[in-house]
Amino acid sequence: MSSGNEQDHSFFAGKEKDSTKPWGGRFQKRLHAEMEAFAASLPFDRRLAEEDLTGSLVHCRMLMRAGIISAEEGALIEEGLEAIQREVEEGTFPFDLSMEDIHMNIEKRLIEYIGPVGGKLHTARSRNDQVALDMHLFVKKEIIAVERLLRSFQAEIVKLSEKVQEVIIPGYTHLQRAQPVLLSHHLMAYFWMLQRDRERFGDLYQRADLMPLGSGALSGTSFPIDREFAAQELGFEHLYENSMDAVSDRDFVIEFISHAALLMMHLSRLSEELIIWSSQEFSFIELSDEFATGSSMMPQKKNPDFLELVRGKTGRVYGNLVALLTVFKGLPLTYNKDMQEDKEPLFDTVDTVKTIVKIFPAMLSSLEIKRDNIEQALDQDFSTATELADYLAGQGVPFREAHGIVGAVVRYCLDQGKTLQQLTVEELSSFHPHLREPQAQDRLKPRAAVEARTSRGGTSPGALVKQLQQAKLCLGKSAFHQAGKKSD
Amino acid sequence: MSSGNEQDHSFFAGKEKDSTKPWGGRFQKRLHAEMEAFAASLPFDRRLAEEDLTGSLVHCRMLMRAGIISAEEGALIEEGLEAIQREVEEGTFPFDLSMEDIHMNIEKRLIEYIGPVGGKLHTARSRNDQVALDMHLFVKKEIIAVERLLRSFQAEIVKLSEKVQEVIIPGYTHLQRAQPVLLSHHLMAYFWMLQRDRERFGDLYQRADLMPLGSGALSGTSFPIDREFAAQELGFEHLYENSMDAVSDRDFVIEFISHAALLMMHLSRLSEELIIWSSQEFSFIELSDEFATGSSMMPQKKNPDFLELVRGKTGRVYGNLVALLTVFKGLPLTYNKDMQEDKEPLFDTVDTVKTIVKIFPAMLSSLEIKRDNIEQALDQDFSTATELADYLAGQGVPFREAHGIVGAVVRYCLDQGKTLQQLTVEELSSFHPHLREPQAQDRLKPRAAVEARTSRGGTSPGALVKQLQQAKLCLGKSAFHQAGKKSD
Amino acid sequence: MSSGNEQDHSFFAGKEKDSTKPWGGRFQKRLHAEMEAFAASLPFDRRLAEEDLTGSLVHCRMLMRAGIISAEEGALIEEGLEAIQREVEEGTFPFDLSMEDIHMNIEKRLIEYIGPVGGKLHTARSRNDQVALDMHLFVKKEIIAVERLLRSFQAEIVKLSEKVQEVIIPGYTHLQRAQPVLLSHHLMAYFWMLQRDRERFGDLYQRADLMPLGSGALSGTSFPIDREFAAQELGFEHLYENSMDAVSDRDFVIEFISHAALLMMHLSRLSEELIIWSSQEFSFIELSDEFATGSSMMPQKKNPDFLELVRGKTGRVYGNLVALLTVFKGLPLTYNKDMQEDKEPLFDTVDTVKTIVKIFPAMLSSLEIKRDNIEQALDQDFSTATELADYLAGQGVPFREAHGIVGAVVRYCLDQGKTLQQLTVEELSSFHPHLREPQAQDRLKPRAAVEARTSRGGTSPGALVKQLQQAKLCLGKSAFHQAGKKSD
Amino acid sequence: MSSGNEQDHSFFAGKEKDSTKPWGGRFQKRLHAEMEAFAASLPFDRRLAEEDLTGSLVHCRMLMRAGIISAEEGALIEEGLEAIQREVEEGTFPFDLSMEDIHMNIEKRLIEYIGPVGGKLHTARSRNDQVALDMHLFVKKEIIAVERLLRSFQAEIVKLSEKVQEVIIPGYTHLQRAQPVLLSHHLMAYFWMLQRDRERFGDLYQRADLMPLGSGALSGTSFPIDREFAAQELGFEHLYENSMDAVSDRDFVIEFISHAALLMMHLSRLSEELIIWSSQEFSFIELSDEFATGSSMMPQKKNPDFLELVRGKTGRVYGNLVALLTVFKGLPLTYNKDMQEDKEPLFDTVDTVKTIVKIFPAMLSSLEIKRDNIEQALDQDFSTATELADYLAGQGVPFREAHGIVGAVVRYCLDQGKTLQQLTVEELSSFHPHLREPQAQDRLKPRAAVEARTSRGGTSPGALVKQLQQAKLCLGKSAFHQAGKKSD
Repeated sequence: MSSGNEQDHSFFAGKEKDSTKPWGGRFQKRLHAEMEAFAASLPFDRRLAEEDLTGSLVHCRMLMRAGIISAEEGALIEEGLEAIQREVEEGTFPFDLSMEDIHMNIEKRLIEYIGPVGGKLHTARSRNDQVALDMHLFVKKEIIAVERLLRSFQAEIVKLSEKVQEVIIPGYTHLQRAQPVLLSHHLMAYFWMLQRDRERFGDLYQRADLMPLGSGALSGTSFPIDREFAAQELGFEHLYENSMDAVSDRDFVIEFISHAALLMMHLSRLSEELIIWSSQEFSFIELSDEFATGSSMMPQKKNPDFLELVRGKTGRVYGNLVALLTVFKGLPLTYNKDMQEDKEPLFDTVDTVKTIVKIFPAMLSSLEIKRDNIEQALDQDFSTATELADYLAGQGVPFREAHGIVGAVVRYCLDQGKTLQQLTVEELSSFHPHLREPQAQDRLKPRAAVEARTSRGGTSPGALVKQLQQAKLCLGKSAFHQAGKKSD
Repeated sequence: MSSGNEQDHSFFAGKEKDSTKPWGGRFQKRLHAEMEAFAASLPFDRRLAEEDLTGSLVHCRMLMRAGIISAEEGALIEEGLEAIQREVEEGTFPFDLSMEDIHMNIEKRLIEYIGPVGGKLHTARSRNDQVALDMHLFVKKEIIAVERLLRSFQAEIVKLSEKVQEVIIPGYTHLQRAQPVLLSHHLMAYFWMLQRDRERFGDLYQRADLMPLGSGALSGTSFPIDREFAAQELGFEHLYENSMDAVSDRDFVIEFISHAALLMMHLSRLSEELIIWSSQEFSFIELSDEFATGSSMMPQKKNPDFLELVRGKTGRVYGNLVALLTVFKGLPLTYNKDMQEDKEPLFDTVDTVKTIVKIFPAMLSSLEIKRDNIEQALDQDFSTATELADYLAGQGVPFREAHGIVGAVVRYCLDQGKTLQQLTVEELSSFHPHLREPQAQDRLKPRAAVEARTSRGGTSPGALVKQLQQAKLCLGKSAFHQAGKKSD
Repeated sequence: MSSGNEQDHSFFAGKEKDSTKPWGGRFQKRLHAEMEAFAASLPFDRRLAEEDLTGSLVHCRMLMRAGIISAEEGALIEEGLEAIQREVEEGTFPFDLSMEDIHMNIEKRLIEYIGPVGGKLHTARSRNDQVALDMHLFVKKEIIAVERLLRSFQAEIVKLSEKVQEVIIPGYTHLQRAQPVLLSHHLMAYFWMLQRDRERFGDLYQRADLMPLGSGALSGTSFPIDREFAAQELGFEHLYENSMDAVSDRDFVIEFISHAALLMMHLSRLSEELIIWSSQEFSFIELSDEFATGSSMMPQKKNPDFLELVRGKTGRVYGNLVALLTVFKGLPLTYNKDMQEDKEPLFDTVDTVKTIVKIFPAMLSSLEIKRDNIEQALDQDFSTATELADYLAGQGVPFREAHGIVGAVVRYCLDQGKTLQQLTVEELSSFHPHLREPQAQDRLKPRAAVEARTSRGGTSPGALVKQLQQAKLCLGKSAFHQAGKKSD
Repeated sequence: MSSGNEQDHSFFAGKEKDSTKPWGGRFQKRLHAEMEAFAASLPFDRRLAEEDLTGSLVHCRMLMRAGIISAEEGALIEEGLEAIQREVEEGTFPFDLSMEDIHMNIEKRLIEYIGPVGGKLHTARSRNDQVALDMHLFVKKEIIAVERLLRSFQAEIVKLSEKVQEVIIPGYTHLQRAQPVLLSHHLMAYFWMLQRDRERFGDLYQRADLMPLGSGALSGTSFPIDREFAAQELGFEHLYENSMDAVSDRDFVIEFISHAALLMMHLSRLSEELIIWSSQEFSFIELSDEFATGSSMMPQKKNPDFLELVRGKTGRVYGNLVALLTVFKGLPLTYNKDMQEDKEPLFDTVDTVKTIVKIFPAMLSSLEIKRDNIEQALDQDFSTATELADYLAGQGVPFREAHGIVGAVVRYCLDQGKTLQQLTVEELSSFHPHLREPQAQDRLKPRAAVEARTSRGGTSPGALVKQLQQAKLCLGKSAFHQAGKKSD
């Protein structure tokens, strides 16, 4: 029976000529000192300690079960791993930079604890499938964490939308006032973006839910391993069906960052809006002191730092995506050292996204909506001009004619420095007799314009209520339901 | 009743002062000539003519059904649209660059055909929801096309894998020979990458399957429209639940390009490998004349142009992804003209990916596998060294000791200029008595090494057969099944 | 003597078995039809016709001069090339898609004109150095064009700055009002960004100014060519000193796009500001009708389409940069077909940048500055609070104490709903006796605050005058002077 | 006289209601705890401690000189800053995370040392121009460091090229053997790439060599500062002429990363080649043990980890470029918190590039060139087929005919399994009588083909000698000469 112990992740610690270590064989010179530091992944992959230990524990159980190691050996190894787990949790694990990566650190520590039998843990396993396993466990964990945070964020949006249900703001296209809308309607647009983000992460979960363990260095192993058992213990729904794919694949990492990039894009849009709304010129909102900062010199300043950082950190996540896509471009199978570059962009993306998605709803709920300013703003614009034309059209005036009439009204207002609502009945009726009717003037009120938009998904209060109901249905559903169903 | 005719996509044609056109009102100068050409989208959005007509036909039927236009008006409009459809199909449609975009071109043509009643088609619709609809219809169509092509590609891989089932090649890590594998196993790694690509596009379909029509310029409409009817007629499963989201959202476009980027990444890897394998030094394969090109001067040259272009065009798709992510970074709601930049990157990505995925399987099936060269290559390497150590381990020699023994054997070979298989029984047994046994030498044969890797997903012929079965199951399933289920 | 005719750019036209063409030799099957269309570069490289002809003319003269072709042959070839040049200029050149690229199209046409002697033009040349030459000529031409446009743009900024010299606007940090500044000062910030852009393009010119011609397919040629003569005729200052570098290098293309990306970044910032200033809430400026568009339905709309497109097209240029960086990542020497992907991103970038840089100054000069609105805005903010503290500090009050006092003043204003300037002498002096003095109140005027910033580069009118002088000095200098000097 | 102390970089430490700190004024709530950690830049900007102290020292001297602070105050501050400098150097500086950034950390520490007078250091300065100054100082320092390393790298290439001057290798296009070249010629191609990289960094230096100090928060200062003095002391050649530009500009950071991206692109190409050459199939080179790693299980493995990491880290630098371009897209003037994201991508790029450029030459010089393998390879290919055709052409056979003849020879060889050099005189002359001559056969030798390429920049030994001379001239020149000249 052959060993599957095909370690291919390159070893470089201990390449001394007279090494007592098991791999000294072919090499005659020690690794170049700067090269050693350059190539070490421990500074970042130590973050995978938990996943590595979990994977090793299950691997050990599988080896026992398959009779590849004895029950005694297995028990010893488990004991050692648990001791290490405690050290990691307590922060006392003695990380050793000369041992290149987290896998070697743990193996070395295991042997320190339980002696040479610790070396048997690596039977039928290679660092190639081991690190792939760690990455899968990590990504799966973080997908769940992000999904949960996104749901809380959505819930906060719903809550806020319900709270400000009566507030009307100008709706914009091209950053020009277009038509009045409910502030809640505007906010809820982001609910749906986050919903798609959540679904994307949910869909990704299925593709991350493939176990690479048992693929060896690249070609599988000749040991009678039980991949199904390991998968079940580790909570994997599926196995990689091809060992070469298993050790080469980082799609799930790149896809994670792709989805994070879209998410950040959404949040950068919301941030941009809130920054603009916080300007003195807009003054629609005021940030809570908790999320704004001041200036040591200019006492009037209240800077939306959080929102600016969210907008700025979008660049960081885009950059991480480009970094990883570049790494894998044109890379032959199977494992190549280039792939070590997968970790930092992922970790950075996870941290960035989680922190932002955690803080953002708190910031949102602490916003002060400056209703007076908004109301005043609405009175001064022409965003209900459309309504007047609509009214005439409703009275049988051909729409083109109606549009022309209202166009003239607007021009009259601009010339006179008046708003539509400031026009007297006389002024209005001088453009068309129907405009004498009180209903005509009623239509000029922003609230009337909003209430008229009753189409499904529109901004009328009634449509909003239905939208909120739909939203709550979505909130009630995990993005993973689907995956769950699939496994039934 | 108000008109929902909130056209917000900016009009610029015909802004002359004394215009007889319905929107001349506020403007007093014609658009700057270079600006007009700069802003026109017709040169690229004419590609959406089919989608635009389909959307308009359904919109017309909905307006009739809801009583917003009369049956006679509706019939006339339908007739006009069908005439235009014929022109488009026959290539006789008179595209007019002064009419800025495809929507205005069709509307103008409709009015030329059926007179002013053609203007009623735009009731309860804005160009904002109209163009969003066109993009959705286009993306949905192209997802289906790409999924189909990917499936054919996968089928070709399975076919080829079955054909070359007995061929063994060196398996690589770090582009260094690691362990022998079945060529089929190597090829099948790409089957699974394409499977994930296919699933990603399948998942995206659900998110593209939302109808924006009926969202107006941004806030919905006050006409009693029937969005459910239109959705059903247009084959949409879902509606956007928020009109502002509906006209602002291009997630489905960006996600399409994200998935295309991953797909191209996979194909760039395969291309790189085939380019390397086609080098004289490797000589594992020879491209068919149909997919290679020569040199006018160097008669020996046979250049893998197709593969190089695939690798190179990966950059193009990555670039398209970055372009769109950048466009939307920090963009406030709702429609902004920046969004017009969504089309060219999408179209370019669709064309690039479809062409490549169509040609690649034909290229693959026409490859000549140079079995003699490969076999010879295998005899000259040390990639079965692991097997010898495994054999000793199986005989009870502790693995470390076994590894040390084989390390010495390899070094001996290097010094003597011999391969492992060229060693005599005497030479072998001088390292360890167990190596005298014929089974030891048997293990040194690449085929034996391959056959030993019986773990699930491993490279042994038996495992490959099972893998191919799994693959065929996947091939039998559409990536859209899930979506289908959801709609039950 | 050997021919340098090492054509390596792959030929695929005419690979029929019984070809009478000179390269049919090794191939036995025609190129796959879809592959042919996929690989053809003619659709985009026809844009290089002019450069290709220029390069060929000079190459022909060099061949004559070096005695490689006879004077009669040379004269005939020149005649043919000139005939083709006329066809290209007049738009009558019969582009033939089956002849893959622009080089083959011209060569074929030349032979049609003057017979087989046309084939001698390609002596001592390969398509590898030929296409590199075309790209260099094109990039050099476009650098000069962009530099010129940038200078005009800068001149327009200076002109506008001089025109609006007395206008004060709020200066922002974090999009919050910080301190009042001269509008001219704000505008001039962009002058300096464009100055750096111009210098970057100028520096690039030197690196594009290397002639690759004479490098053959990759290794030079054995013909006694005179590269110095060709360089002089073609206006190149330097030669590539390494033939392999010459045919592999596209740094100058990537660097062009890098600099374009920075330029677009600058313009996206300016566009963003002008979009925000055009909002009803800011109302600092109004776009000329020539550069804005309206809505067919909402008569009040005036959309800043041009500015939005500039902002959006930033994504396109970033994408082009990523595309090319990706193409060249990990590409072995020398020419690889991947490199054909260099053209479209370059052409697209050139067109995008030139159009924008041409239109932008016209748009800028047609802006209406709404001075009344701006003045009114300044009266309502607290951006001169710093001045008050400064005044106290100037009177000997320790700065910290002064800051605290003014902080209290600001809070008092916020509570009372007053601006600083609305405070009475009594109110002010209740915070500190020194504030009773008229100079204290004077400092609260935006103009006073602006005038105080007399440091070099500051916003005071005097400093601005000096800045404008510096700017004019820069305007007077070409970004290429340096290169010119170098060549002395 | 007003204080220029317009700190706009937002303060958030110590916003407690009853703060005794100078900026407590407007705020009533402490900053949200997670927000505080999210927004802090100390974890990365502490790296700028040295630059910050240098800038402060000079600022202090300028304040004294201009009479803004007294000589005593200045002496005290200098003393304090020097004490802090020692702490930083010795690693004992007590970094305080609650003090948000490096600037506040140093200011706080200064006050701890010398009391309230330490607060005077910030007179006429804002964190906006302070951080810009630090970044300029840092980038200038690192440009010089990178330029120096690049020059050493180039020197190593020249040295190696001189050492292996007689080695001939196959030259490739499309990774297919094209024509034989000198290994030195191939290596020298990279010399010229690095030369352009070096020039780019040199050109950038001039654009980084602008002093922002004295620009205040955004608008300059009313203190009678002496920017020219500060510039001279700090070693700046130029001043920013516009204060708003000065605090908004990060072009020099982005340009640094752009140039680094091109440099990495070059190194990824070289790495790719060396990886391919290290494969068993090529076996042109063998990496030194110092720069390769093995496998714990597969004794034959020698993995080119360093080269793979270089190739992979190209993605990282590309990603950093995209990150920063994204951050600044559409950002209004002047300072925005988004800009804090400029540091990590820069630092990461500097570290990545410097480490690689430092290790690479050592790796290169330790390579073993496997001359026997290369020689053997050359004997087996057809890369001199061109020469045979050239020979015939030289004998008066029309080139086309010659090409056809040699095409037939090649085909004959392929059919017979022979190389060109294995053909007998009889075989050769059966194709054409001239091929009977010994000179014909001579041309088939790779060395003869190489020697024939005598054109400038070609691969002949003579041309190489001239190339090396040119290279040494370049090596002798600093990339900054130009800048130096300019300052004369």
